[in-house]
Amino acid sequence: MQNRNLEKQVSFIKEIDKVKYILRQSKLFNSDRRENDAEHSWHLAVMAIVLAEHSDKPIDLLKVLKMLLIHDIVEIDAGDTFIYDTTKDHDNTEEELDAAKRIFGILPEKQAAELIALWEEFEASETDEAKFAKSMDRFEPLLQNASNSGGTWVQYDVPFQRVYDKKKIIKDGSKAIWNYAEGLINEGVEKGFLKK
Amino acid sequence: MQNRNLEKQVSFIKEIDKVKYILRQSKLFNSDRRENDAEHSWHLAVMAIVLAEHSDKPIDLLKVLKMLLIHDIVEIDAGDTFIYDTTKDHDNTEEELDAAKRIFGILPEKQAAELIALWEEFEASETDEAKFAKSMDRFEPLLQNASNSGGTWVQYDVPFQRVYDKKKIIKDGSKAIWNYAEGLINEGVEKGFLKK
Repeated sequence: MQNRNLEKQVSFIKEIDKVKYILRQSKLFNSDRRENDAEHSWHLAVMAIVLAEHSDKPIDLLKVLKMLLIHDIVEIDAGDTFIYDTTKDHDNTEEELDAAKRIFGILPEKQAAELIALWEEFEASETDEAKFAKSMDRFEPLLQNASNSGGTWVQYDVPFQRVYDKKKIIKDGSKAIWNYAEGLINEGVEKGFLKK
Repeated sequence: MQNRNLEKQVSFIKEIDKVKYILRQSKLFNSDRRENDAEHSWHLAVMAIVLAEHSDKPIDLLKVLKMLLIHDIVEIDAGDTFIYDTTKDHDNTEEELDAAKRIFGILPEKQAAELIALWEEFEASETDEAKFAKSMDRFEPLLQNASNSGGTWVQYDVPFQRVYDKKKIIKDGSKAIWNYAEGLINEGVEKGFLKK
């Protein structure tokens, strides 16, 4: 039984290598090089480790890390949707759910169910762990854009209000991080990267 | 106090972006593209999540994930040393310790001490968590080489015994994974990728 599990797990480990080829719109810090989903997921996980103390609610950090490490695996099939895309909804779509079922479904049944549930919990953003994980997911590209003279805000001419609306959910995970984030958004306006 | 912590943590988050530029010798699965340390760390962390059941000892998975996510950050200063390098020792060097002190030292003092201790624990390979984490670190490039017609084994003409000696510590974390790994090494010999 254990060995049959291991074979399935190795197949999954090979399949998720594709996450390294999925490019996000966001660039690395002080850089023109686009970030891929594996790099992004790694960065969010380390962020969660060092920023956990700022969560407004007690959180199960292991659960947060699991969520962050697997949250973009569905993009192997569904692709990355730019957060400021005006034609396609960024939220949980049928396509992403099918992807979750196919990709996590490579794993042994019980494990597949656990990871699909974790991914759904992240997407639903209702538990304290999901809220904190989401705040990491919104905070990283904000830090990147701030370091890149506005980055994708300038590149796609995204207005202040749209950025503010997408980023304010950081507050649901951490007021301290939101205060910091809001400061960066306001600086973006002052520097002319974001138009009111 | 909390806000001063946050400033330091953000500085650290920016600094570790450099991990995405550190190229390993190992290539992605079925690919010629070299893997970077951020992608590698992400992959090992997901592997630890799905393979944890194969650990021979009960492990604190959160600790394992923390170790794997931060284990290569020292390479920002110390660089990646190829595991089969015959001129430079791959193990914990003075240079890596200095790097750990400088980079984790960007964080608030208590947090810096915690992460340096975790990194040292990983390097020392004595605790059950460190042993399992190390087994992930050895298993991933083996899977990659097996998928790449021998990969770096062929590229650098690494003999069977050297691979076997480096990989056998997988057994200290998991006998089941070691059995699987040993099978792949033997296949490598049969296919002529590794010379006895």
